[in-house]
Amino acid sequence: MRLESDSMGTVQVAADKYWGAQTERSVHHFPIGRSRFRWEAPMIRSLGLLKKAAALANLELGELPESIALPIVWAADEVISGKLDAHFPLVVFQTGSGTQSNMNANEVIANRAIELLGGEMGSKTPIHPNDHVNRGQSSNDTFPTAMYMVVVAQVFDTLLPAVVALRGTLAAKAQAFASVVKVGRTHLQDATPITLGQEIGAWVEQLDYTVKGIEQALQGLYDLAIGGTAVGTGLNAHPRFGEVCARQIAQLTGYPFRSAANKFFALAAHDALVNTSAAIRTLAMALMKVANDVRWLASGPRCGIGEIDIPENEPGSSIMPGKVNPTQCEALTMVCAQVFGNDATVAFAGSQGNFQLNVYKPVMVHNVLESITLLAESCQAFNEHCAEGIVPNLERIEANLEKNLMLVTALNRHIGYDKAALVAKTAHREGKTLREVADQLGLVAPQKFDRYVVALDMTHP
Amino acid sequence: MRLESDSMGTVQVAADKYWGAQTERSVHHFPIGRSRFRWEAPMIRSLGLLKKAAALANLELGELPESIALPIVWAADEVISGKLDAHFPLVVFQTGSGTQSNMNANEVIANRAIELLGGEMGSKTPIHPNDHVNRGQSSNDTFPTAMYMVVVAQVFDTLLPAVVALRGTLAAKAQAFASVVKVGRTHLQDATPITLGQEIGAWVEQLDYTVKGIEQALQGLYDLAIGGTAVGTGLNAHPRFGEVCARQIAQLTGYPFRSAANKFFALAAHDALVNTSAAIRTLAMALMKVANDVRWLASGPRCGIGEIDIPENEPGSSIMPGKVNPTQCEALTMVCAQVFGNDATVAFAGSQGNFQLNVYKPVMVHNVLESITLLAESCQAFNEHCAEGIVPNLERIEANLEKNLMLVTALNRHIGYDKAALVAKTAHREGKTLREVADQLGLVAPQKFDRYVVALDMTHP
Amino acid sequence: MRLESDSMGTVQVAADKYWGAQTERSVHHFPIGRSRFRWEAPMIRSLGLLKKAAALANLELGELPESIALPIVWAADEVISGKLDAHFPLVVFQTGSGTQSNMNANEVIANRAIELLGGEMGSKTPIHPNDHVNRGQSSNDTFPTAMYMVVVAQVFDTLLPAVVALRGTLAAKAQAFASVVKVGRTHLQDATPITLGQEIGAWVEQLDYTVKGIEQALQGLYDLAIGGTAVGTGLNAHPRFGEVCARQIAQLTGYPFRSAANKFFALAAHDALVNTSAAIRTLAMALMKVANDVRWLASGPRCGIGEIDIPENEPGSSIMPGKVNPTQCEALTMVCAQVFGNDATVAFAGSQGNFQLNVYKPVMVHNVLESITLLAESCQAFNEHCAEGIVPNLERIEANLEKNLMLVTALNRHIGYDKAALVAKTAHREGKTLREVADQLGLVAPQKFDRYVVALDMTHP
Amino acid sequence: MRLESDSMGTVQVAADKYWGAQTERSVHHFPIGRSRFRWEAPMIRSLGLLKKAAALANLELGELPESIALPIVWAADEVISGKLDAHFPLVVFQTGSGTQSNMNANEVIANRAIELLGGEMGSKTPIHPNDHVNRGQSSNDTFPTAMYMVVVAQVFDTLLPAVVALRGTLAAKAQAFASVVKVGRTHLQDATPITLGQEIGAWVEQLDYTVKGIEQALQGLYDLAIGGTAVGTGLNAHPRFGEVCARQIAQLTGYPFRSAANKFFALAAHDALVNTSAAIRTLAMALMKVANDVRWLASGPRCGIGEIDIPENEPGSSIMPGKVNPTQCEALTMVCAQVFGNDATVAFAGSQGNFQLNVYKPVMVHNVLESITLLAESCQAFNEHCAEGIVPNLERIEANLEKNLMLVTALNRHIGYDKAALVAKTAHREGKTLREVADQLGLVAPQKFDRYVVALDMTHP
Repeated sequence: MRLESDSMGTVQVAADKYWGAQTERSVHHFPIGRSRFRWEAPMIRSLGLLKKAAALANLELGELPESIALPIVWAADEVISGKLDAHFPLVVFQTGSGTQSNMNANEVIANRAIELLGGEMGSKTPIHPNDHVNRGQSSNDTFPTAMYMVVVAQVFDTLLPAVVALRGTLAAKAQAFASVVKVGRTHLQDATPITLGQEIGAWVEQLDYTVKGIEQALQGLYDLAIGGTAVGTGLNAHPRFGEVCARQIAQLTGYPFRSAANKFFALAAHDALVNTSAAIRTLAMALMKVANDVRWLASGPRCGIGEIDIPENEPGSSIMPGKVNPTQCEALTMVCAQVFGNDATVAFAGSQGNFQLNVYKPVMVHNVLESITLLAESCQAFNEHCAEGIVPNLERIEANLEKNLMLVTALNRHIGYDKAALVAKTAHREGKTLREVADQLGLVAPQKFDRYVVALDMTHP
Repeated sequence: MRLESDSMGTVQVAADKYWGAQTERSVHHFPIGRSRFRWEAPMIRSLGLLKKAAALANLELGELPESIALPIVWAADEVISGKLDAHFPLVVFQTGSGTQSNMNANEVIANRAIELLGGEMGSKTPIHPNDHVNRGQSSNDTFPTAMYMVVVAQVFDTLLPAVVALRGTLAAKAQAFASVVKVGRTHLQDATPITLGQEIGAWVEQLDYTVKGIEQALQGLYDLAIGGTAVGTGLNAHPRFGEVCARQIAQLTGYPFRSAANKFFALAAHDALVNTSAAIRTLAMALMKVANDVRWLASGPRCGIGEIDIPENEPGSSIMPGKVNPTQCEALTMVCAQVFGNDATVAFAGSQGNFQLNVYKPVMVHNVLESITLLAESCQAFNEHCAEGIVPNLERIEANLEKNLMLVTALNRHIGYDKAALVAKTAHREGKTLREVADQLGLVAPQKFDRYVVALDMTHP
Repeated sequence: MRLESDSMGTVQVAADKYWGAQTERSVHHFPIGRSRFRWEAPMIRSLGLLKKAAALANLELGELPESIALPIVWAADEVISGKLDAHFPLVVFQTGSGTQSNMNANEVIANRAIELLGGEMGSKTPIHPNDHVNRGQSSNDTFPTAMYMVVVAQVFDTLLPAVVALRGTLAAKAQAFASVVKVGRTHLQDATPITLGQEIGAWVEQLDYTVKGIEQALQGLYDLAIGGTAVGTGLNAHPRFGEVCARQIAQLTGYPFRSAANKFFALAAHDALVNTSAAIRTLAMALMKVANDVRWLASGPRCGIGEIDIPENEPGSSIMPGKVNPTQCEALTMVCAQVFGNDATVAFAGSQGNFQLNVYKPVMVHNVLESITLLAESCQAFNEHCAEGIVPNLERIEANLEKNLMLVTALNRHIGYDKAALVAKTAHREGKTLREVADQLGLVAPQKFDRYVVALDMTHP
Repeated sequence: MRLESDSMGTVQVAADKYWGAQTERSVHHFPIGRSRFRWEAPMIRSLGLLKKAAALANLELGELPESIALPIVWAADEVISGKLDAHFPLVVFQTGSGTQSNMNANEVIANRAIELLGGEMGSKTPIHPNDHVNRGQSSNDTFPTAMYMVVVAQVFDTLLPAVVALRGTLAAKAQAFASVVKVGRTHLQDATPITLGQEIGAWVEQLDYTVKGIEQALQGLYDLAIGGTAVGTGLNAHPRFGEVCARQIAQLTGYPFRSAANKFFALAAHDALVNTSAAIRTLAMALMKVANDVRWLASGPRCGIGEIDIPENEPGSSIMPGKVNPTQCEALTMVCAQVFGNDATVAFAGSQGNFQLNVYKPVMVHNVLESITLLAESCQAFNEHCAEGIVPNLERIEANLEKNLMLVTALNRHIGYDKAALVAKTAHREGKTLREVADQLGLVAPQKFDRYVVALDMTHP
């Protein structure tokens, strides 16, 4: 053990840990959700990137000498690399500004830099966690900056690739089945025909639309709080610190981050994160629609709709031998339900800011990150273990199509809606074909019927 | 027009209206949702009942003489009867304590009582809206009291009768179809057989369970805030006022209302209302399940599941002739979606109390009342125009049952899970019957098969 | 009464009503929420505009002759004008595709056109509700088209003007109070100083951001379903009908509507509406923050923060004389709670589509419209009766500022964080000023202190 | 590695793991949320208890011989003890019936029992995972049984003790501060006086009420699905299996579990779990109110309300020296926001059942368990690090009380509401005391004033 100190006094810290007094106090005071809510690697990496960028900005602006700034950069690089993850023990449910995680980063970087320089850990010399690592910063601007950075990174690194891969699979299926004509369904009732390609194509379009929505929402996350310090005024930071630090962040990450025009807003509200959460919720809803359609179309095998087959990945029942279930659809829709709730948390939290600060920052970013991860991983599993294996059950599709009464709609233009309705209703009541009934009622002769009612033509393929 | 006054001065009020200055100010300041959010009759009636009970309690306790109390009672009776509804112009979105609606009741009753006594409206003599009608009361205890009264009344008067009627219809169907054996479905996939009676019986049980939950939640609403006055201390009320007034309310309404043990809690939080909203949400979920099952079972007519038929109430499509849709299911599930959101509003509002008062009272009671009304009316419509007309499509049910591979489960006890799985999978792959395959694989002889696999027995009817 | 017919037979309709059999059936089957959920004028107007545009498009494309198309246009113009509102009796909770409201429009327009041409109402001659008014259309494409049209119109006509007006008031206040230095607050605790202008400016920025979000969300609503007919294939419509009709709609409304690229998606999912709802939710959250800040800053008058005064609009209490409450904040935050729940309904409904149709259309558009109206009206009331009257309580502001310990932050750069903390903590413990303690501890001489710690400078005004 | 097999064929499993083919397949197919969503010890223990009870029931009913049943019990005891936790690798996001986790338990217990008997793992001899461990069971009845068991256990073992401890601390504070008179607050505005004991007592009452609601909700969880097997009919189970197994569970756990009256409902819907989630949400709302009140009362230290002091646990700011924040309140309210969202997930999932099964079981129980754990841990931290240290700031409390204008309410009974309002308004406008103004206006002489207006009396202590 070694002694670490802060403005409240000294505390014992394990000798093999880089963190300091404030991290240790947080470990003690917030034993909430330790098994599941410890910050994961992406958030720690984001704090490391931010601290590196801040040191570079302070160096550029003459706020820190090279002798201080460079060791900070070296230590921050280790944080970024992930090799210091074990030195970030804190959980989501801490102070609502994320101060303790910001201090965790400051303390770890300071002590590691001190160590690199051959100094004594805990001495705060020659690198001080507040005066140097946190130079020109406050938790109130660094933590939301790191939040936005990590969300942008996770969307691009994990979510979008997974959705795009699934989209690609579905687009290929849509093309492959472009000429498979089948019954359409509205209100769960038989409707006019479509192609399986059109049906799947609607899923592709929906994914495209929701991905576009996420990309738009990210625009708001590029505006960083950094430079606002404690309340938005930028007190104690170099006047150009926000701008320079944001530029450094943009260079380090490759994303178009910039200094937020209004820092007061950037600290007090996280509407851009709420919008991002909402856009992700819309994606979840799109996936819910896709997964539900897939499992209904695959329902059966004999007493359901059964128009497509999906891979049989595992035995479906511990009691019913030979049963196979749409398990990937189930996992995916459960994820969607989770995302729905996560978004409710984010929105609730987003509404509770007071004055110069919203103190629900950690729970907001946690839920957005969880939604991103779950959707990414479930899209990938769904794609690989379900979507790629979708094949039409042509026999069933054709049988269904043939008996579909809504083919009658093609007669509207020839005999009007009311007479066409009479044909359909009579066929339904008498269990006959439309063709028979149209003839029987003297409305359309069979040869004409065959010319008017061509399922493929009705799909406008 | 006549002049009315309050502690802020005088205002003009239409001569033919009983309300006074504070109501008029609210009309002026809160033109929000006028077309849809004006308080409806049940809430006005509830305020009338409360004011009558309060006058009777003050009379009993010697806080008001007969000459004051009785005219208040007469005027309150007119409010209760509904004939003064036009004198309650205020909307939900006003002050969060409902003060303005409490004053609306005070003013209308005072002026009408003055009129009955031959006095001059607006003179506050001999009946003063605050000193007499509101005697021993504050909006902070009267409004939540009226809220709980109206919710209890609406649950018993409209919601439960509608649910119970639907429950009765379904119970009769369950009994009528107790011997209709059909395919069961889990994961949307064919499963071991059940009877249609069992399937519908599960809906009945679910309704019973959720109704019981609502009744339990109501227990919390019987604890009335009345007697707490402004902050819960009961300042300016007779020490026994809360108890006596609650007894009067119980006698007037027939429900077991009582004085809340802790008035501070009764003003500052409405957890009982949140619980009631949640119990109503659970009912909505139960109805969602029922309506979804009904429309899926009725899907088709030819290319869906089609195991039940439901009434054809109206043409389903403006373009597809002869189409019929499960429209009652759709209206009901849209109501469920509405109730889901209403509950989110109630819960959010319920979490936002500060110190001695929660100032989201009007929006909380409004949403609970709306959910009650919508569920009552949609249950009634669904019952009358859909549930009552449910009939099994026996031909389809039998055809499905016959080909159901999960009948194989009955073999588990005879040949074990693994061999039974082999039978099912082979039958599925080769498009054969279980009976054929069991024989072909040498596992079960046909005669034994017929003895082991009896669908009706498998339902344990 | 007169007889009207549809494909199910004949029904009696009141002679003075233009609607036909299907509307009448819906009135009968859906008595749900009649007092509060009847479609309001904007939705009816939107259906009228759509039917006019469709007739013009069919005329242009040669699908309808002038003798049919023009009378449809004339009747549609009457719908648009609002004079036929009484002929639209239907409610939100009907069939989930809005078919009955689409048919209501078709029937009213057909009958009114027939009347204009001197024909017999109910005869469907020479104008047929399905074959002519609904020509090339299905409820499945018309209803969502009308939905998107009405939402766009209401956002521009009512919501944005109200928000922009409030924004203008706040921006003027921010400018007026740009030099009023006051204590900042984070975690509800005293923090480094800001100006009142900066504090209010953050609200302005938040409104600007959320308005931008709404405008972005509207982009998705410009893509209209029209042209997709029953399932997205465009069956029975002229191939260019969607494109031409969308152009007509754009011309009639002045908004950049266009034909959706993928009609299957346009019928089966309403993600653009979910996104719009979410963007409106973010606005509600912004308003929640503003209203909460206002009422906390105005809390007191003597035992709260009391740094601003707001208009005293009405007596605040029926029992506490002279009490004045932040009632506009309360109404506004109750609206925000309502919007929160409405959005939950929209999102839930949006996730429940199946195959070629989402059948929660009416409840989705209803909730979005309700949120728009409530926010518009409450913003206007809040602006007029609260925001415009905000004035600083300079005496209180200065007294608070002076004793604020967080002015110590200005010393960080001179004596470091740790020593500055010692100064603040000592001053807090001993009830002294920072200036005294800094001197007493020998850290900063009084003259230097006065140079270092200048509240106005600390705000970087 | 060793070979394991199921009805789909063989798979490789790590030799040191007890699980079999189906668990392995699930590991492969559901790599979703591996770092955070693996089932934790309580759920695994619950599956172990269930399997033990099932073996004992089958033994009692003669369905399994001792030679099979007892080794199953021995292995199940090891699962219960936690020493086989590493053999349960599966995550929440799997099949929606929890089949894979049920099979995980079956496989681990079978293999461990085989090992204990000296057999060959993977041989399914003499203990077969389906035919013996899962005897008379289906995932569809075992998994929901284990769900209800674990929720009941966690509520009693972790949640209630933590809430009760906090409740005890607050009750002691309420008693200790029973005579501290202070300003009450409604609408955030000064109101008539209360005691600090009354203020805190309202929190105690709210906790008591919400705890009672949770206990009521648990009633529904005592009804177990076990005995329903695949679809509710109990196929392949001994007719008394459900009843006997439930009795065994009750004996093993000490909770009054019983066999559900209607097994079809018990599989198809989890309304009891939704109700439990809602009751927990109400607790979260109560805690939100408590935590918000605490942080507002402790706001300052100099420019807020400042009527109580709370422990200073850690430095509050990385930039503002000496700042202390109400961090425990922040963690607790973030947990409440999380619980709010978790409940939304549970409710959504609960509404999505179809036919004989709801396939959102894992995500439902996961969210309820998470809410329980987070609330338990945050209540404990809040109690220990915040509530226990609450002390009144008597100086501030008295100063506020003295200047509180709402003391005027005590005059209502003597001079009427209108004149009392005049006194309060004049005092406010002129910055005077009520006593001065009452005298100046000739309404109440000072000596009478002192008799009428006694703050302590006004609290009805």
